[in-house]
Amino acid sequence: MGRQRWVAVAREVADRLAGDAVDREQKGAEPVQEVALLRESGLLPLLIPAERGGHGEDWKTAHAVLAEIAAADGSVGHLLGYHYLHVWRTRLFDRPEVTERLERATAEHGWFWAGVANPRDDALIMTDANGVDGRRHLVRGRKFFATGASVADRLVVSAHEEATGRKVTFVLDAAAPGIRYLGDWDNLGQRLSASGGVDFADVEVAPADILGAQPEPGDPRAQRDSLAALGFQLVLSRVLAAVGRGALATAARYTREVSRAWPASGVERAVDDPHVLAAYGVLRSRLDAADLLVDLAAEAFDAAEAQGPALTAEQRGETGVRISTAKVVTSELATEIGSRVFELTGARATAAKYGLDRFWRNARTLTLHDPAVYKATEVGRHLLTGDLPPLTGYS
Amino acid sequence: MGRQRWVAVAREVADRLAGDAVDREQKGAEPVQEVALLRESGLLPLLIPAERGGHGEDWKTAHAVLAEIAAADGSVGHLLGYHYLHVWRTRLFDRPEVTERLERATAEHGWFWAGVANPRDDALIMTDANGVDGRRHLVRGRKFFATGASVADRLVVSAHEEATGRKVTFVLDAAAPGIRYLGDWDNLGQRLSASGGVDFADVEVAPADILGAQPEPGDPRAQRDSLAALGFQLVLSRVLAAVGRGALATAARYTREVSRAWPASGVERAVDDPHVLAAYGVLRSRLDAADLLVDLAAEAFDAAEAQGPALTAEQRGETGVRISTAKVVTSELATEIGSRVFELTGARATAAKYGLDRFWRNARTLTLHDPAVYKATEVGRHLLTGDLPPLTGYS
Amino acid sequence: MGRQRWVAVAREVADRLAGDAVDREQKGAEPVQEVALLRESGLLPLLIPAERGGHGEDWKTAHAVLAEIAAADGSVGHLLGYHYLHVWRTRLFDRPEVTERLERATAEHGWFWAGVANPRDDALIMTDANGVDGRRHLVRGRKFFATGASVADRLVVSAHEEATGRKVTFVLDAAAPGIRYLGDWDNLGQRLSASGGVDFADVEVAPADILGAQPEPGDPRAQRDSLAALGFQLVLSRVLAAVGRGALATAARYTREVSRAWPASGVERAVDDPHVLAAYGVLRSRLDAADLLVDLAAEAFDAAEAQGPALTAEQRGETGVRISTAKVVTSELATEIGSRVFELTGARATAAKYGLDRFWRNARTLTLHDPAVYKATEVGRHLLTGDLPPLTGYS
Amino acid sequence: MGRQRWVAVAREVADRLAGDAVDREQKGAEPVQEVALLRESGLLPLLIPAERGGHGEDWKTAHAVLAEIAAADGSVGHLLGYHYLHVWRTRLFDRPEVTERLERATAEHGWFWAGVANPRDDALIMTDANGVDGRRHLVRGRKFFATGASVADRLVVSAHEEATGRKVTFVLDAAAPGIRYLGDWDNLGQRLSASGGVDFADVEVAPADILGAQPEPGDPRAQRDSLAALGFQLVLSRVLAAVGRGALATAARYTREVSRAWPASGVERAVDDPHVLAAYGVLRSRLDAADLLVDLAAEAFDAAEAQGPALTAEQRGETGVRISTAKVVTSELATEIGSRVFELTGARATAAKYGLDRFWRNARTLTLHDPAVYKATEVGRHLLTGDLPPLTGYS
Repeated sequence: MGRQRWVAVAREVADRLAGDAVDREQKGAEPVQEVALLRESGLLPLLIPAERGGHGEDWKTAHAVLAEIAAADGSVGHLLGYHYLHVWRTRLFDRPEVTERLERATAEHGWFWAGVANPRDDALIMTDANGVDGRRHLVRGRKFFATGASVADRLVVSAHEEATGRKVTFVLDAAAPGIRYLGDWDNLGQRLSASGGVDFADVEVAPADILGAQPEPGDPRAQRDSLAALGFQLVLSRVLAAVGRGALATAARYTREVSRAWPASGVERAVDDPHVLAAYGVLRSRLDAADLLVDLAAEAFDAAEAQGPALTAEQRGETGVRISTAKVVTSELATEIGSRVFELTGARATAAKYGLDRFWRNARTLTLHDPAVYKATEVGRHLLTGDLPPLTGYS
Repeated sequence: MGRQRWVAVAREVADRLAGDAVDREQKGAEPVQEVALLRESGLLPLLIPAERGGHGEDWKTAHAVLAEIAAADGSVGHLLGYHYLHVWRTRLFDRPEVTERLERATAEHGWFWAGVANPRDDALIMTDANGVDGRRHLVRGRKFFATGASVADRLVVSAHEEATGRKVTFVLDAAAPGIRYLGDWDNLGQRLSASGGVDFADVEVAPADILGAQPEPGDPRAQRDSLAALGFQLVLSRVLAAVGRGALATAARYTREVSRAWPASGVERAVDDPHVLAAYGVLRSRLDAADLLVDLAAEAFDAAEAQGPALTAEQRGETGVRISTAKVVTSELATEIGSRVFELTGARATAAKYGLDRFWRNARTLTLHDPAVYKATEVGRHLLTGDLPPLTGYS
Repeated sequence: MGRQRWVAVAREVADRLAGDAVDREQKGAEPVQEVALLRESGLLPLLIPAERGGHGEDWKTAHAVLAEIAAADGSVGHLLGYHYLHVWRTRLFDRPEVTERLERATAEHGWFWAGVANPRDDALIMTDANGVDGRRHLVRGRKFFATGASVADRLVVSAHEEATGRKVTFVLDAAAPGIRYLGDWDNLGQRLSASGGVDFADVEVAPADILGAQPEPGDPRAQRDSLAALGFQLVLSRVLAAVGRGALATAARYTREVSRAWPASGVERAVDDPHVLAAYGVLRSRLDAADLLVDLAAEAFDAAEAQGPALTAEQRGETGVRISTAKVVTSELATEIGSRVFELTGARATAAKYGLDRFWRNARTLTLHDPAVYKATEVGRHLLTGDLPPLTGYS
Repeated sequence: MGRQRWVAVAREVADRLAGDAVDREQKGAEPVQEVALLRESGLLPLLIPAERGGHGEDWKTAHAVLAEIAAADGSVGHLLGYHYLHVWRTRLFDRPEVTERLERATAEHGWFWAGVANPRDDALIMTDANGVDGRRHLVRGRKFFATGASVADRLVVSAHEEATGRKVTFVLDAAAPGIRYLGDWDNLGQRLSASGGVDFADVEVAPADILGAQPEPGDPRAQRDSLAALGFQLVLSRVLAAVGRGALATAARYTREVSRAWPASGVERAVDDPHVLAAYGVLRSRLDAADLLVDLAAEAFDAAEAQGPALTAEQRGETGVRISTAKVVTSELATEIGSRVFELTGARATAAKYGLDRFWRNARTLTLHDPAVYKATEVGRHLLTGDLPPLTGYS
């Protein structure tokens, strides 16, 4: 089976990432090596059809892969998940020939994708200019929090068309003249996710690389277009669950191999301390439940995508609610596990060399992408009134 | 599909049960009517093979049915779940002719089963006596907490053989002379579960109805025999999840239809209160996760059972750990939801006529069957050391 | 010291109440005997000046007394706390001669007071009518949730003056013609608090017993008048803390005397189970903290009251915030303890004869008086913006 | 009043510390400047009697001072709290002339004290050697986690006497030959607490600076001697509460000044978001309760110390339990606040320049000094059985 093979590949990559995760994070270099590792592993074209040079896997495989990678290194899982989203997003614009061209090139050249589309920050403007050859599209402005952009080959960018105000999405060569990466991501967690800002100084957009404009709210295509926002929520949920799993596994190894039993416990080995045992058991149980919820959300997402343009508002909305349940549970749990692992390992586990805090820092940072309480609100509203979430950049 | 049909049947039964659940519980009669309703619905022989007059469904269907019934009435869900377990348990003794005879009779007569086997209370003795026809087996002693026994047609009973000390399991006609039901179940919750004690005064056991003795710890059959204990843990997890779901659904209806917005909320309708919305969303999200965990545990249980006598200690142990994760999560969550629904409905929801507290009372009572913290301990120990749970009446 | 003496008296009363609390609650009679016990104990005129026949104690003593009574019986604590509030409230209207007359009569006749003033339910109308002697005030309408009214001697009632719309407060003989007690308090908890509704059919109000009208928002007297609302919040906090303490103490006795160690714990006695020990320790620690917070709130309340008409909006507001901190902490904690004590006692503790659930039921019911989340909102707002709570019936 | 004056001084120091706390922590230099700031402020000889050149304040003042300092900088609060403990500890040995000499010198020279006495690490040996002048005491070995030692003027050190095995405590000049500071404190939090290890290579101990040997368990002096262990628990509780307060205050400023309202909240300002308001309110309420519990524990400690050699096992034990309640509540709360502040501030608050994670890191590190669950165990055991905590290095 393809899935098993790719999960095995992901495990190998994960093992390599886990081996020096603490060290790489402390160095804090741009994740160039990490992207190269992903490229070499063959994981980048996972979702691209086989006939275009990819591996033809579905989102279920992608999630299984992300779970492995993100447990080992939350930043790299984040980068890979967003890469999958951006490659996949082109399909939502119903321009099959563009999708095909980009997918073939991605498979051929091993492109790594990222996006510049933070919804809270509507700062990019696309203008028309008369160039020597007639019409030219230029983009200018500055965006914050563009995960992966500085280490990407291709960028999916959204900007407002100056003339119409419409939000237009297009693809750029990440090395195009006029793009400058601010390198200003110096944050608590996900430190290797290259999430700094990007500045655009009259960057030219090739007409052939314009994917399309965001449909008007009433437009039947709006439901499908808006799957992209759900995709991000889903990937974040997956990465959060994996960060929780990584934390628990790393802590368990420490408890087994390094921790000393506390004198008042009356036991010889830390692994026999009743409070340590029960706490691991509770966290592991919740984590298993959370993972299943993300799996179910991923299935709902797959099913919604499979509808193509026929996707109804109801199915789209229920998919969003389903994904929100996953986001709610994983946000709370990953943060809790990230913090509580220290109670299960002991004072010496705070030594910087173990870097055991990276899980809390990664979880905490990921959970702030957008507030989980407003995901819970969507779920609660749907339960109480049947209302579906509005179409926004976050729901 | 069979499964969908039986779920639909279960929903109808559940609707009838929900309609007067508060009233029936306040009256507190023996659940005779409830068992009759189950009998009429056709749900009792669900797991019995079609060729023996049953419906030939698997545990997955049984769980889907239990989820519906127990959400409407935790007691009846409990009764039905235990019934399924007791009918199914005869298979573990590898006496196919006994199983066949009992299954056929169960289907034919619409028998409802219960057990008398509380592991904390080793009080029954089986003696050999010389009757007119030679050897006779008599049982005497008293057991507590025998859910459903007083309304059952057939009982699965365990007793210690006086001569050998072995624990022997057998089937009795619940109306056999010498059996007296104490009717002393007057407890916080699961009030209609008929969980009172049973007294045995030299009750005769037919040799043909002796299922067998508990295997010695080293005996390869011990793994399979011990699946029964796991079955109880799994059914309790299912009922707990369903009680949580029933609580949330009942509260949501109240919030929608009865609650008034709190003045300081600044909204017009209770369903728009931001704290109400977020709280429902969080609880619903966790509940969905918990349900999936019980589903996964049920699948593991099915797979373990399917091994028959070939079941290994490892698979049996991992099945137990998997079920324990479900028990841990559902125990905590059902209790929490049962208590928190009042915050989501308001002061008037405390009126006795609404009986909204029955969910907390049911959850709280169910969670005390055996302490969830020792289920968490099994999960934690397995994670830390790989150790499998010991074979006991609770693990 | 007076305080110690009254605490000792309260302890005796509490011991008598605790002795048959389960039995009295299950019978569910009107709390006539309980009020008689309070009357005989001498606790009723606690806050009335010695020169008027009372004991001249302050709120600090009253709180120490309430803590004892409410730990033994939450309903009686509630009744007594509200009695203190209603006797004391007359002072806020600056009609010293009325206060003096009522206090003297209360001390002389051993009156028990209650109120009819649920703020969510503005249903009482006071009209002027020309009687044989000229002007007469008549009250009509129906109010819900009037704790203690049906067993009281005197009622403090608020109604809207038909002509002006002003809210007017007055005192009535609880046995006055036209007052009918609905006896409809059949709720989850605080079952002996006589919190049913009251119907007024043209009940005559003596002009001399009209305490006054609620000041307009801008009126400097509004701050002091509004202390009454804070007083209720404070008494509820005290009763909640005491319910938590009663639960923990009752459970601890059970664990010590009745609980059996769980087999998997590896210990001989339930009091040596590591999880039981740690859980009691955590709950007790939080409870001690909560009690201190209520004490501090009571001190702030005393200080605010001592300002008399000079009470500033700022001091009034900060007192309200302080009391809200107590309400937030005690609401959450009392409910949690009430539910978790079952985990610390075991399955048999669910027997109805132990009535261990009364603490959760009482806590849960008390916490719904008004939502704790909006108390938290006041505290949070004050922290963030310095804003003081608005003057309402709940803040 | 002296207390108010010293609290005012502490506030000034705290303001200076808060001003560059993030920057200082990121630089991670030895806290030499910080100790100098404490020295200049006059806070170091706070507990030393006025007639010996100190300020003659009691522990209550010391706690008020620590609360200010530790809210601004948890490391410096930790250093100062331990300094107070070590200066005060000499009194427990009943060698008033030594205490007087050391206190006078401390006041005169502005000495800063620290200790080398981690109880989990019994690695120091004191030997007798025949030097040129006869008997000499030499100490050798290595200890870990000696907070403040590397920046101290005087050290309180415990070692085992080679000949007798007794644990002996003595004072050393921190600059004495043979002492080497390992500078190996590179841990998650409390980064400026100079908590690295110390190596002793035949360091000479002046006989006059030997405070005494640990009393045998049966010795009546054992109770008083063991107050030192409680003092550490109490100071840690204080610092934890202050770290929580610092976190909440720092976050509140950010929410006020920097945070943007989340679009789905429907409000204009972050300070009006209902979830933000309620969360601040809950955390603040719990924090106020926690602070009161630490205050009460400090009073109990003062009272126990005031007993001098007459301190009974019962009072010592109850003081320990009281302090454990404070440790339990503050450990859980400080960690929770430290993590949750991010939910109250938003994604940009994860920028490294804000250093908002330092509170979680400090709390998390402090809580691992010894596991809070075993403090809870002491409290629970005392509640259930009346047993007092054993005399150990942590209880």
